[in-house]
Amino acid sequence: MSNRDVIGVALLGFGTVGQGVYDLLIRNAETLFKRKAGTSVVVKKILVKTREKSREVSAPQSLFTDSIDDILADPDIDIVVEVMGGVEPASHWIIAAFRAGKHVVTANKALLAENGDAILDAAQTARKNLFFEAAVAGGIPLIRTIRDGLAANRITGFYGIINGTCNYILSEMAAKGSEFADVLREAQALGYAEQDPSFDIDGIDAAHKLVILIRLCFGLRTQIANLTIEGISSLDRLDLDFARHFGYAVRLLAIATADASDSLSIEARVQPVLIPQGKILSKVEGAYNAAYIQTDAAGDIMLYGRGAGRYPTASAVVSDILSLAGRLCRGGDCYEPPYGYRSEAIATATVRPADEHIGTYYLRFNVRDEPHVLEALTKTLAEHGVSIASLYQPPSFSRQTAAIAVLTHETRQRDLWLALKKIDSFPFLVEKSRRIPIEPLTFS
Amino acid sequence: MSNRDVIGVALLGFGTVGQGVYDLLIRNAETLFKRKAGTSVVVKKILVKTREKSREVSAPQSLFTDSIDDILADPDIDIVVEVMGGVEPASHWIIAAFRAGKHVVTANKALLAENGDAILDAAQTARKNLFFEAAVAGGIPLIRTIRDGLAANRITGFYGIINGTCNYILSEMAAKGSEFADVLREAQALGYAEQDPSFDIDGIDAAHKLVILIRLCFGLRTQIANLTIEGISSLDRLDLDFARHFGYAVRLLAIATADASDSLSIEARVQPVLIPQGKILSKVEGAYNAAYIQTDAAGDIMLYGRGAGRYPTASAVVSDILSLAGRLCRGGDCYEPPYGYRSEAIATATVRPADEHIGTYYLRFNVRDEPHVLEALTKTLAEHGVSIASLYQPPSFSRQTAAIAVLTHETRQRDLWLALKKIDSFPFLVEKSRRIPIEPLTFS
Repeated sequence: MSNRDVIGVALLGFGTVGQGVYDLLIRNAETLFKRKAGTSVVVKKILVKTREKSREVSAPQSLFTDSIDDILADPDIDIVVEVMGGVEPASHWIIAAFRAGKHVVTANKALLAENGDAILDAAQTARKNLFFEAAVAGGIPLIRTIRDGLAANRITGFYGIINGTCNYILSEMAAKGSEFADVLREAQALGYAEQDPSFDIDGIDAAHKLVILIRLCFGLRTQIANLTIEGISSLDRLDLDFARHFGYAVRLLAIATADASDSLSIEARVQPVLIPQGKILSKVEGAYNAAYIQTDAAGDIMLYGRGAGRYPTASAVVSDILSLAGRLCRGGDCYEPPYGYRSEAIATATVRPADEHIGTYYLRFNVRDEPHVLEALTKTLAEHGVSIASLYQPPSFSRQTAAIAVLTHETRQRDLWLALKKIDSFPFLVEKSRRIPIEPLTFS
Repeated sequence: MSNRDVIGVALLGFGTVGQGVYDLLIRNAETLFKRKAGTSVVVKKILVKTREKSREVSAPQSLFTDSIDDILADPDIDIVVEVMGGVEPASHWIIAAFRAGKHVVTANKALLAENGDAILDAAQTARKNLFFEAAVAGGIPLIRTIRDGLAANRITGFYGIINGTCNYILSEMAAKGSEFADVLREAQALGYAEQDPSFDIDGIDAAHKLVILIRLCFGLRTQIANLTIEGISSLDRLDLDFARHFGYAVRLLAIATADASDSLSIEARVQPVLIPQGKILSKVEGAYNAAYIQTDAAGDIMLYGRGAGRYPTASAVVSDILSLAGRLCRGGDCYEPPYGYRSEAIATATVRPADEHIGTYYLRFNVRDEPHVLEALTKTLAEHGVSIASLYQPPSFSRQTAAIAVLTHETRQRDLWLALKKIDSFPFLVEKSRRIPIEPLTFS
């Protein structure tokens, strides 16, 4: 009973994800199209740089093209699936696809975070849909859950483990007592980390995703430059040991919270943080992702699953293709605002400055083992209004130096920074002091 | 740019959930309609038995009616929201609503599980939508996630904590070392359990939900009578203590797995089971719900959140209303198969008989503390091919009786039943032997 029996798709790119999408569409065709949609989705063209190349998933040579214009001009192509990555030329091509009357599915978080408005404008002008389930948290249907499943809610907080590389490294460091550099090398060998891992381990990837999530959760626009972003490369195994001693695990969290009284003001940061060992997020191990969402009506929701990989990402891309195919079959103007919010209703966020953050902290000082050191440390903290909740100096591993770990009471980050700046100038400090925020997670 | 500026809704019932829906639609109207939909959803009529009644959420008297015909005949009502519960007259009225050209949202799992086919037929004949996000796991958008988010996947396993009452009782028993009857009384006082709790504690509620989930996950039809259903009322605190001793927690799980080689054959059961303490599902405490889903492409997915309560359930109902409103605005024939699968593609499941289940088990025997008892027990088990993996007899709490806990190796349930039948006939047995399946959960 559908208006359209075949939906035509073009893939831009045929790498890890593109091959997964192609394979999944064929492999599960029986379930997807015969038992469910009653419509077929057919890949009509695949844009590649090199036609002749050995690939894990093979497709007929006749599908390959190196010309985007071939795809844009083909009236049988309804949906353009961008799985090539990079901001350009992907961004230009997506905008051109909208102008050519195509709907777009993308897995490209950098593009959405960095060139989001231009792409949204093009979609809206063309009244074509932009779907991007694969851009955040791979196989977890997180985008859809926030946009559709939680549509009735005001979202007040998002706490996500949304970079699998970092979570793998942190959970391996804790499990094996290994140092960061060693685990990173292992992760690279296993394919869990890129050869240039900086995008992941410096928190940029998670920050791109958080920009997307902020628009989705709160209807607010922001840029990565406004976020507090800290990576995990300066974490020592020693800090993970101390964290465990105090009853915490360390996770790289992407956090965004909205101030209920002022919907434009948000807190937004990507940071390694200490979270209590009993909390569910602390059980998220390895390359898994998880998102904890606080809402006014549904209460707390958590989603957990694989954040990356060929098939988890392909699962998200194909779910978008199927949603679009359903809308296309029904005909008519099927434009929906990609983030749920109408574009006129999306305002610019006021991200609260990091130095105004009030919270508790873990601090670690490596010092020369001399008299008056502890006195000088605690005095300096007190002078800056930083009050100590717990202090632990384990038996020293050398005669000369000692490691001292401190948990603070609630303090304003600005005051703490001033205290640490002063402490770092003391001659007895062997290396720069370390500071990791503690997230008590007032939820399960 | 929508065809329709106002979507009219009628509520059938104005109890806990109905009041929540009404309140949520008004409370979050700014976010839902001004910032998101650009369409208003307006409650036009509310069907109640008694107009004059003190309620927590008040609605204008002019909305109340006691006549279903009033609602069915009103051309301004697009969506009928059934939140009255019970199989009849809800079932008749929903079918009448489809015939009158309305779309239907329901929170009624018993109705879907017991009269599902008749209602699906009526929806399909009328080409009107049936949405039921609230029928399973309250505030967790589980239905949508399986139907839309995981649409590209073959689902192979579902493991759910989908009855909050049972999970509350089991986690309280474990946390406080209390007996079942005491915790049940507490739960009733707190409103976590009904005055007649049998529907929940006997596993019927979870089984209703599992029937719905089986249709959704596998496209297979079955009935509650085909499921293995065991409740939690026979669990003793002693079993929870033994479980902990062996490194397990006890949870009432609803389990459905599909045999990859034969898509009609499934395993489907609701049972208290032992799950390893480290697994994420064992961290699901209190009245929370969780669903662990195994898929071929996305990998493992878990969803966690509030399974019941006025606002979590209302969140699910309103998300359905908003999804429908979006489709209605676009006009045209917007019928979608409610479970994702086209009705012609839904087959009848072959549920594997419980006695063929092969697995490991926890057993507990309360026996008179006499010579040869252990010998008789272990000999009988061995004679039936039940092999012992671990055995624990703690120091006896009385001179006369002893409790013996056993973990078995893999065994066929039929063999185990025969062994236990024989053991239960021994004169030294003080009470009937206990048996709880162990679910190793081969996932995180």
